[in-house]
Amino acid sequence: MKSRAAVAFGPNKPLEIVEVDVEPPRAGEVLVRIVATGVCHTDAYTLSGADPEGLFPTILGHEGGGIVEAVGDGVTSLEVGDHVIPLYTAECGECKFCTSGKTNLCGAVRATQGKGVMPDGTSRFSYNGQPLYHYMGTSTFSEYTVLPEVSLAKIPKEAPLDKVCLLGCGVTTGIGAVLNTAKVEEGATVAIFGLGGIGLAAIIGAKMAKAGRIIAIDINPSKFKIAEELGATDFVNPKDYDKPIQEVIIEMTDGGVDYSFECVGNVNLMRSALECCHKGWGESIIIGVAGAGEEISTRPFQLVTGRVWKGSAFGGVKGRTELPDYVRKAESGEIPLDTFITHNMKLEDINEAFELMHEGKSIRTVIHY
Amino acid sequence: MKSRAAVAFGPNKPLEIVEVDVEPPRAGEVLVRIVATGVCHTDAYTLSGADPEGLFPTILGHEGGGIVEAVGDGVTSLEVGDHVIPLYTAECGECKFCTSGKTNLCGAVRATQGKGVMPDGTSRFSYNGQPLYHYMGTSTFSEYTVLPEVSLAKIPKEAPLDKVCLLGCGVTTGIGAVLNTAKVEEGATVAIFGLGGIGLAAIIGAKMAKAGRIIAIDINPSKFKIAEELGATDFVNPKDYDKPIQEVIIEMTDGGVDYSFECVGNVNLMRSALECCHKGWGESIIIGVAGAGEEISTRPFQLVTGRVWKGSAFGGVKGRTELPDYVRKAESGEIPLDTFITHNMKLEDINEAFELMHEGKSIRTVIHY
Repeated sequence: MKSRAAVAFGPNKPLEIVEVDVEPPRAGEVLVRIVATGVCHTDAYTLSGADPEGLFPTILGHEGGGIVEAVGDGVTSLEVGDHVIPLYTAECGECKFCTSGKTNLCGAVRATQGKGVMPDGTSRFSYNGQPLYHYMGTSTFSEYTVLPEVSLAKIPKEAPLDKVCLLGCGVTTGIGAVLNTAKVEEGATVAIFGLGGIGLAAIIGAKMAKAGRIIAIDINPSKFKIAEELGATDFVNPKDYDKPIQEVIIEMTDGGVDYSFECVGNVNLMRSALECCHKGWGESIIIGVAGAGEEISTRPFQLVTGRVWKGSAFGGVKGRTELPDYVRKAESGEIPLDTFITHNMKLEDINEAFELMHEGKSIRTVIHY
Repeated sequence: MKSRAAVAFGPNKPLEIVEVDVEPPRAGEVLVRIVATGVCHTDAYTLSGADPEGLFPTILGHEGGGIVEAVGDGVTSLEVGDHVIPLYTAECGECKFCTSGKTNLCGAVRATQGKGVMPDGTSRFSYNGQPLYHYMGTSTFSEYTVLPEVSLAKIPKEAPLDKVCLLGCGVTTGIGAVLNTAKVEEGATVAIFGLGGIGLAAIIGAKMAKAGRIIAIDINPSKFKIAEELGATDFVNPKDYDKPIQEVIIEMTDGGVDYSFECVGNVNLMRSALECCHKGWGESIIIGVAGAGEEISTRPFQLVTGRVWKGSAFGGVKGRTELPDYVRKAESGEIPLDTFITHNMKLEDINEAFELMHEGKSIRTVIHY
């Protein structure tokens, strides 16, 4: 079948809106019509060419909401008409990761997903007879896309897909890092580094956890207003200080924070986030994705004296099991998705969405098909 | 009063056995007659001059067992004749660290301890009228030493002080890192990097936790026999392989270990220990003390994909509360202290104990006064 799609033909080139060919779903696969999709920094990272695992030509996009159009042989958990959120972190429920009870990093489709193909090693997308790579197993910048059954979370049909699509990445990642990875307790002091979509979502998570103090940190002070609306209690612009930001935060918290979250992908900030944690128990969670080959570092003394360094992928959330509850929380207003949606556009304008993001003018742009 | 002591008059010089002057305990302080003391790598590290916080002249030693000889005003929890283990990690029970329930890093006497003096800012030791610095708040290389009340764990009188003195540092540190910091579960796969006193103690801890597989790693294969006696199940000499040791361990464990422990103080090994952990849940605990200014590093992807980097000081053990139980476990044989004691010596021969340690010929030498 034919599908409109925004194709990345090469690194650092604008996406091109073309009509691609989509093959029907094979065994264990599902054809989804994407209704709306967010545009996320990770898409931009891969498009820039900086992602060493980036493959071209490809169809980017991983923050979508859609409706099942067809199912392949053996698909039992989904049927035509179901509303779904594509998952770049699958949940098969059977691999050693899923059964460990310790992680959401399912291994079922991981190897082929990383190579830009379906589990059988081939692509469902082509353009003028040439195959296009899948991206993150989701490729939501195509109106019709094919995913493994284990990479789709079924959600209630009442939920507006052009809003809950944001639960496919950034919002869930930020909230989950707070609730699942850090398990922030009531009354805790929390520092959030970077007030993009993930950082703002982390503020929501901290508020849900009833954190006592939520310190929002960004070099762009125009972000503070929305951070405050979401529940942040303190606002720090590192440019206002001559000394390392970890020292500033340690002073303002009488020894450091209980939990910190790096939501940018800057390895120097990851160090600051660790080192602003309180001796004896402070935990720092890396959420941001750093550039290829970049490394974090610190003195081991920071850890020996009780700080803990962790990371979080998709907020530690098991998509098929847990996303329906996130959708319900969005419906009830506990997760205010509208706050994130600063722009709505058509697929044809998707390059503008990338520009707004680069300029720091948008939190999330939602593309409507 | 006069006391025999091994004094470090300067960095990288042999200790000198001299008679020092010891002032009586002041308010909140206790005079202890040390019966026996271990010699630990940390003593050697400070003696070498590499410790940026090392102060000279000083009386080293922090792994002792002794008997209370006198108490200062206001001391209520100890009386003359009590058997005690000096604690370089105090436990006041009242500071924000002690009351947090999250750490053993008591803050009560920390600031002055780090400066080589008692909480009132002065030293109880002098030689020829010149003050000597205290060391780690313990200075067990003096037959008579003065400590804050909060820095002494009272233990049963039946326990042999010339063995349980080892619970004052290395043995407790290794076991506690496994049981308290990592909380290793039954059946877990564990890697122990470095088979000195702390690493061997970590093996004991892993055995106590009923770990399913205990991988002992050292470039000195003569350590493997004792590691096996203590419960290690696999033995790896990194010199036997051409590739990074983390790759070797990931292969032999089908993906990595559940917990790893760095017991050397080598920052490269700390990285290996982290990176040999299983994706999704592996935790690495830094126990070793790195050289001044050295830093650990890794790609943040290691953490984002679920590994956790922690550290442990004195095994996370609250000395006053928990050491009596360690002593009982030593008495029952569950902690086989005899295995650690490869040499016994008089104070006069203490420099030989340092040499044996440097040459890798001893695990622990116990000095008998």
